[in-house]
Amino acid sequence: MDLTNLRPVAEKLFADVRELSFDGVGVTRQSYGRGESAAADYLKGFAESEGLVVEADRAANLVFRKPGVAADAPVVWTGSHIDSVPQGGNYDGLAGVVAGLLCLVARQREGDRIGKLPLEVLALRGEESAWFGKAYMGSGALFGKVSAADLELKQRSTGETMAECMRKAGADVEAIRQQQQLFDKARVKAYLELHIEQGPVMVARQLPLAVVSGIRGNVRHNSIVCHGDAQHSGVVPRWLRHDSMFAVADLIMRIDEHWRVLLERGTDLVVTTGIVGTDPAEHSISRIPGNVRFSFEARSKSEDTLDAFYHLMRAECEAIERERGVRFEFDRRLRSTPATMNERMCNILSSACKDLGTSFDLIPSGAGHDASIFANAGIPSGMLFVRNQNGSHNPQEAMEIDDFMLGAQALSDAIDRLE
Amino acid sequence: MDLTNLRPVAEKLFADVRELSFDGVGVTRQSYGRGESAAADYLKGFAESEGLVVEADRAANLVFRKPGVAADAPVVWTGSHIDSVPQGGNYDGLAGVVAGLLCLVARQREGDRIGKLPLEVLALRGEESAWFGKAYMGSGALFGKVSAADLELKQRSTGETMAECMRKAGADVEAIRQQQQLFDKARVKAYLELHIEQGPVMVARQLPLAVVSGIRGNVRHNSIVCHGDAQHSGVVPRWLRHDSMFAVADLIMRIDEHWRVLLERGTDLVVTTGIVGTDPAEHSISRIPGNVRFSFEARSKSEDTLDAFYHLMRAECEAIERERGVRFEFDRRLRSTPATMNERMCNILSSACKDLGTSFDLIPSGAGHDASIFANAGIPSGMLFVRNQNGSHNPQEAMEIDDFMLGAQALSDAIDRLE
Repeated sequence: MDLTNLRPVAEKLFADVRELSFDGVGVTRQSYGRGESAAADYLKGFAESEGLVVEADRAANLVFRKPGVAADAPVVWTGSHIDSVPQGGNYDGLAGVVAGLLCLVARQREGDRIGKLPLEVLALRGEESAWFGKAYMGSGALFGKVSAADLELKQRSTGETMAECMRKAGADVEAIRQQQQLFDKARVKAYLELHIEQGPVMVARQLPLAVVSGIRGNVRHNSIVCHGDAQHSGVVPRWLRHDSMFAVADLIMRIDEHWRVLLERGTDLVVTTGIVGTDPAEHSISRIPGNVRFSFEARSKSEDTLDAFYHLMRAECEAIERERGVRFEFDRRLRSTPATMNERMCNILSSACKDLGTSFDLIPSGAGHDASIFANAGIPSGMLFVRNQNGSHNPQEAMEIDDFMLGAQALSDAIDRLE
Repeated sequence: MDLTNLRPVAEKLFADVRELSFDGVGVTRQSYGRGESAAADYLKGFAESEGLVVEADRAANLVFRKPGVAADAPVVWTGSHIDSVPQGGNYDGLAGVVAGLLCLVARQREGDRIGKLPLEVLALRGEESAWFGKAYMGSGALFGKVSAADLELKQRSTGETMAECMRKAGADVEAIRQQQQLFDKARVKAYLELHIEQGPVMVARQLPLAVVSGIRGNVRHNSIVCHGDAQHSGVVPRWLRHDSMFAVADLIMRIDEHWRVLLERGTDLVVTTGIVGTDPAEHSISRIPGNVRFSFEARSKSEDTLDAFYHLMRAECEAIERERGVRFEFDRRLRSTPATMNERMCNILSSACKDLGTSFDLIPSGAGHDASIFANAGIPSGMLFVRNQNGSHNPQEAMEIDDFMLGAQALSDAIDRLE
């Protein structure tokens, strides 16, 4: 099914939703709030004008389908989210919804045939954690993953609770609070999500498309303190120093070297020490730092890699303690489980890309996506990334429409292979 | 001349001055202030009771000598300072004054002989920068090194200006303001200073005494900023990162390695990055740090070493800029000139130590001392360190009286060799 003729439709949808949610700098589509609902209403109107059926599910996400699909029919789902961060970009989330709608509109314009595995498109709410400090609210609620405590979280600008905002949007808050599963999971044979890449890899590697192999989990410490000896910088020679900053620099360089070697072996891993600092209460130019506080984060799509790298980091801390006479003190270790994309979905998406003759590769997703919720709930899930300039969560985000149309075509072809 | 019998004198002087300036925690002898003047008055009284002559010079430092020394006679000076930091230790400065007085008392008790090169003992004021933010006030004023601007500096607790405090102590503030040389420099053939070591080297190396080879200068940047790219920690792989923290860690480890190699070649050097930190306004656990601010300090008794190491550091910054795609931005470079101790004075002090049969070595002083003022003004100067536990500038400072008596004896023997 050729989507080429739908390019003007895509351009109009992106332009209209952008105008609805333009904030003077970027776009702002509040989760379970004004901008998101305005986008939902607009897309509902568009779909109905195309003769499609639009329903809200019990978490107030929109579901689009052709008329005549039975309520208990097995289906393929595709979609993404319609909210954005404050002053964000227009394509983060919306691209996946528009791509799904193009697939559905193409099938609708073709005629009345429903097929064995009809398509439903999801416009999910509340994916961004920026508003309530919690991500995946719309998809998570479907699986009973939004708790009573989550519902009391307050919106960052209005102060309204998540429960109030969900209720206004039409969600069944009582069912969500009871953490029920809100839909018939057995119907859903696959979940495919198209999303812009939020990192710089595809631009750098000149890949218009990529198939997501998995969504990285992470292991973190918010705060590790390296304790040394604070002493006068002029009077203590190297061999008598216990310099906490030199010790932390040593640790970071050992981590960097292990990381480099693991990458050469094909391991998926990123490592970051986002917060590092000597103690402002006592540091000085002429004082050997007595302690340094720092954060540690490793992300990988492999749980084994996270475990192995974490233990490597701890072993290096012990070696540095012996060599430099310092002591590392760790706060509670935090974990987030990686999500693996379904192998068959990856293969189908890859074949679709290959047959389109485009460069593509299998890459992991460092950022989180609704697809991880579906995958970890056991629904065979796959993701397709579209190249995007200037990163994400900012107004400079800049997907090219050619890349988008290529992605929508690959998505449509993959759906064909499932049907 | 054997000082053994004067041990009770030393113990009494230390105990009495400590009692005069005890603050409940440590000792507090304000520069050109109460505690310092109380110590000066007490020492004057003691010296006069021994039949010595005591005068104040035009900077209100005390000068002790035997009666009968002509005003224009060539002399050997020894001494140190009598002020302390707030809640400091009793021996920092006072040890050198008491050692000088023991040498003078021994010579006084021996009889009326003056000798070719008589001894004068200095009890210097205002060595500590803790009170006015300026060090070496008493010795510096003698050489016209205290400026009109310095005289307006305010005492940290009372708010009085340095000029007011100096005037109250009896100094000739108008002459100091005009930066005149306040004494007949040509008379002074040598300056020898005994001082406790303020670092941990002599304790660690079990050296009761050490001869100071020089007083380290330094080269500093208060603030260097490493600029990288702030990006989402999950989505940017290693090869596309410009992580400012990894770059700074890399720099510190390269510095550490050069330092280690230079030490193996016998170079005198210490290096410190006392202040290091990611930017609290934008850092986060899941964000690659966009910039890191840090201080740099290298100290050496060799100006060549400071220059060479500084350029090595800058060269490594350039290499890291190329390799990691970051940029280092430097504030104004600050310099302080090293002071070299006179070779003949070092030899004489070393011979004195050697003949006493004690372990000793030639070591550099990382902290500053009045001797650097005398040395840089062209007076042949030497320094003798006495072992001291627990560092300095704190009440735990703990010189042993055996070590002190050994030091006073070596000082006396060295003076004999000059006379």
